[in-house]
Amino acid sequence: MVNWMDGLALLDSTGPISGVNLFSSAVSTIATVVEEAPEVENVMVLGGVLLSLFAIYVASKVGGEFFNWLGFPPVLGELLGGVVIGISALHLIVFPEEGAIAADSVVMKILQATAGLDPAVAQPTFEIQSEVVNILAELGVIILLFEIGLESNIRELLDVGIQSLLVATIGVAVPFAAGTAGLMLIFHIPAIPAIFAGAALTATSIGITSRVLAEIGRLSSKEGQIILGAAVIDDVFGIIILAVVASLAKTGDVDVVNVIYLIVSASVFLVGAILLGRFFNSSFNALAEQFNTRGKVVIPALSFALIMAYIGSAIHLEAILGAFAAGLVLDEATIQDKKLNELVQPIADIMVPLFFVTVGAKTDLSVLNPAVPANREGLVIASFLIVVAIVGKIAAGWGAFGNMPLNRLAIGVGMIPRGEVGLVFAAVGSESGALSPALDVAIILMVILTTFVAPPMLRVVFGDEETGEPKPEEASV
Amino acid sequence: MVNWMDGLALLDSTGPISGVNLFSSAVSTIATVVEEAPEVENVMVLGGVLLSLFAIYVASKVGGEFFNWLGFPPVLGELLGGVVIGISALHLIVFPEEGAIAADSVVMKILQATAGLDPAVAQPTFEIQSEVVNILAELGVIILLFEIGLESNIRELLDVGIQSLLVATIGVAVPFAAGTAGLMLIFHIPAIPAIFAGAALTATSIGITSRVLAEIGRLSSKEGQIILGAAVIDDVFGIIILAVVASLAKTGDVDVVNVIYLIVSASVFLVGAILLGRFFNSSFNALAEQFNTRGKVVIPALSFALIMAYIGSAIHLEAILGAFAAGLVLDEATIQDKKLNELVQPIADIMVPLFFVTVGAKTDLSVLNPAVPANREGLVIASFLIVVAIVGKIAAGWGAFGNMPLNRLAIGVGMIPRGEVGLVFAAVGSESGALSPALDVAIILMVILTTFVAPPMLRVVFGDEETGEPKPEEASV
Repeated sequence: MVNWMDGLALLDSTGPISGVNLFSSAVSTIATVVEEAPEVENVMVLGGVLLSLFAIYVASKVGGEFFNWLGFPPVLGELLGGVVIGISALHLIVFPEEGAIAADSVVMKILQATAGLDPAVAQPTFEIQSEVVNILAELGVIILLFEIGLESNIRELLDVGIQSLLVATIGVAVPFAAGTAGLMLIFHIPAIPAIFAGAALTATSIGITSRVLAEIGRLSSKEGQIILGAAVIDDVFGIIILAVVASLAKTGDVDVVNVIYLIVSASVFLVGAILLGRFFNSSFNALAEQFNTRGKVVIPALSFALIMAYIGSAIHLEAILGAFAAGLVLDEATIQDKKLNELVQPIADIMVPLFFVTVGAKTDLSVLNPAVPANREGLVIASFLIVVAIVGKIAAGWGAFGNMPLNRLAIGVGMIPRGEVGLVFAAVGSESGALSPALDVAIILMVILTTFVAPPMLRVVFGDEETGEPKPEEASV
Repeated sequence: MVNWMDGLALLDSTGPISGVNLFSSAVSTIATVVEEAPEVENVMVLGGVLLSLFAIYVASKVGGEFFNWLGFPPVLGELLGGVVIGISALHLIVFPEEGAIAADSVVMKILQATAGLDPAVAQPTFEIQSEVVNILAELGVIILLFEIGLESNIRELLDVGIQSLLVATIGVAVPFAAGTAGLMLIFHIPAIPAIFAGAALTATSIGITSRVLAEIGRLSSKEGQIILGAAVIDDVFGIIILAVVASLAKTGDVDVVNVIYLIVSASVFLVGAILLGRFFNSSFNALAEQFNTRGKVVIPALSFALIMAYIGSAIHLEAILGAFAAGLVLDEATIQDKKLNELVQPIADIMVPLFFVTVGAKTDLSVLNPAVPANREGLVIASFLIVVAIVGKIAAGWGAFGNMPLNRLAIGVGMIPRGEVGLVFAAVGSESGALSPALDVAIILMVILTTFVAPPMLRVVFGDEETGEPKPEEASV
């Protein structure tokens, strides 16, 4: 939530024009008073956005490359790059929703020092540029979910096998139930934040798992196939749960009828989009085949993702649910010899880091400083979430039934990393206002730790021997 | 310029909460009153942005493909697609700077009808989402100029030959002098808008000219080479003139010292960037060669363009001058076997239409309705600009001196289309507030007409016979 009036109320502390005079004027003269107030200049807002994007991209590349060089998933580096430039450290990227004002923002200080930003309008300029960066980050997560949808093949999803389905179901149900119940019963956290945190425990990052499996040559092993199938189903379960939980947070009310209604509407939306999509997909292909100008395939695809995101948001589910559904619908599109996901990739390359870095920038690590006694409960909660996150997914490995000689521990460990999907949960929760800062940071710590421990654990439980499988493809340029 | 206080003043006319009560409260209770006021919801701003982007992309593709099918440059179709969805017709995309309020915006009406937007906050929601779309369009023109810079090769620019230089100089000087003097002396337009309109006459669209030359197989003819060289030099002259003129518009003051200072600083910025860039270019390549994660080349390149755009803007020139300089610096980069302009192309494909469609959407055609007597002068001005635009560039053809048998008329005609560069001038002029709506629309009409007439005229003056040259490449997907 953004309240633009806060900006006005703050004007009097930062600007030469007295806020008291502004507001105590007779109502009939408001229009004239407004004319005299200094105006927010578009060029300053643009300057703030340019500096913010520059800081975000530098943080994402430095963090991502460094973590990749260390052998960790780059997404964690982008997240921690965000932490470095955000509220916890450098204060380059801070947001009014987190309580920051213009004087806290290093970007605004740079604008004042180098571009001559009038301090009287620093606060509204800061708020508008922050909102632009926020919306760009939200477009980033919409593109991320669209890309995940494009990479999830519906046909494969349907043949993924009963074992993957069972692994996914246990891997969603156990952490969700244990997490939510534990937070409510042990830590006396109210229902909505507890459900949100429980829901964040359900995700599995298919990207990180499949990359590690490919690196150790286990992608096409029986265990690898079960993990990948379960991770895809997890995404679908997870996004339905997220839509339901976010909607609960909006109404603030957890009654059974509402929960059932939301689960049904989210599922109907997703399934309906896929069924209608079969018809749409062929019309889309036929249309795009006729086009000849620049962006002839990617613009129709992106437009479809945007309008589906809007519909998802308008029916009080989530924009990202719509984008994910759009990706599922279009996933088999191959137009003019180009796979759609290859075309969306360069857009995701520049948009998705905006999301990861922004999540990091909003993460206030100071709420977990153990030197402050009030923070210790947050640390205990974070530890609890991490244990549930790991144990719950390992338990899921035993969902792979039957007498086959399967490495069930490896299957469970493969489901541990939360990665980008867990961050989406944290961001939606934080945005909804349902999560306390401590719980928000606890979820992000859980995501970071599960994502860090999974790759080395997977190597250990699989025995780390090399197989003859091909290595993962080169990253895109 | 955006004044967020206007939104507050308008609240009382659109919302259930009385603005009178809100503003007549005692000053000491402002903080509490603010708490009670309805808040702008982030999800509604995002919804507005999603709908706006959808409308913009649909307009750009429908317009662009239709015009391409008719044999005209797609950019004109995108522009006219914008006119259709903008202030002149459908009112989907309207902007507060143009005097629109939330009640004028069809996107806001859709948000109210489908997503439950509270009418009390429709006005601030409209203003924030409009600002986000504005900034996205400005990022679009920054990417456009970065791409034009990447496509302009400095080495070729230096060897382009004295004939191209002379053609470019005449093609810049004649329309600029004739246009500015004519507007001031005949139409009594003040100096700053007259200089702006004169400057808009200097541009040549290398994209449209080179496409038509390729279609008629004349790209490698002597005339074709002179035209292309001159068009590239035109871009450099044009962007320096634009930076100078926009800066004049900001100070509102045309004195000789200031003009000389601005010309020198814009030229020093551009030349300095290029010289420093030679060193930077090799460090950039060496750095990018080391990177392995997604977006490893495109993100450093984009970051460089963004920070150069910021510097251009901060030193009171233009953000697009910085982006153009960044493109010139990086133009020879070939990293990991990929040409940089191929990597930037997919980003330009989605960002640049935002600019063209937004320019169209802001173009209020009603100011040229000949049925309104007050508009007739605007129409006369538009006709004057069009004549100067065509005659001035044809005159430039005779800058190709010497005894060679050259088709000098063809050279002049090849310089006629203003295309995207002319639109950049119109947008910067409109943004600066220097242009009256009528003059703004007159410039856009000039751009449209010169761009329309050039392709058929070129075919006629070249004799339209087919040559053995290869056809232009396929458009990107």
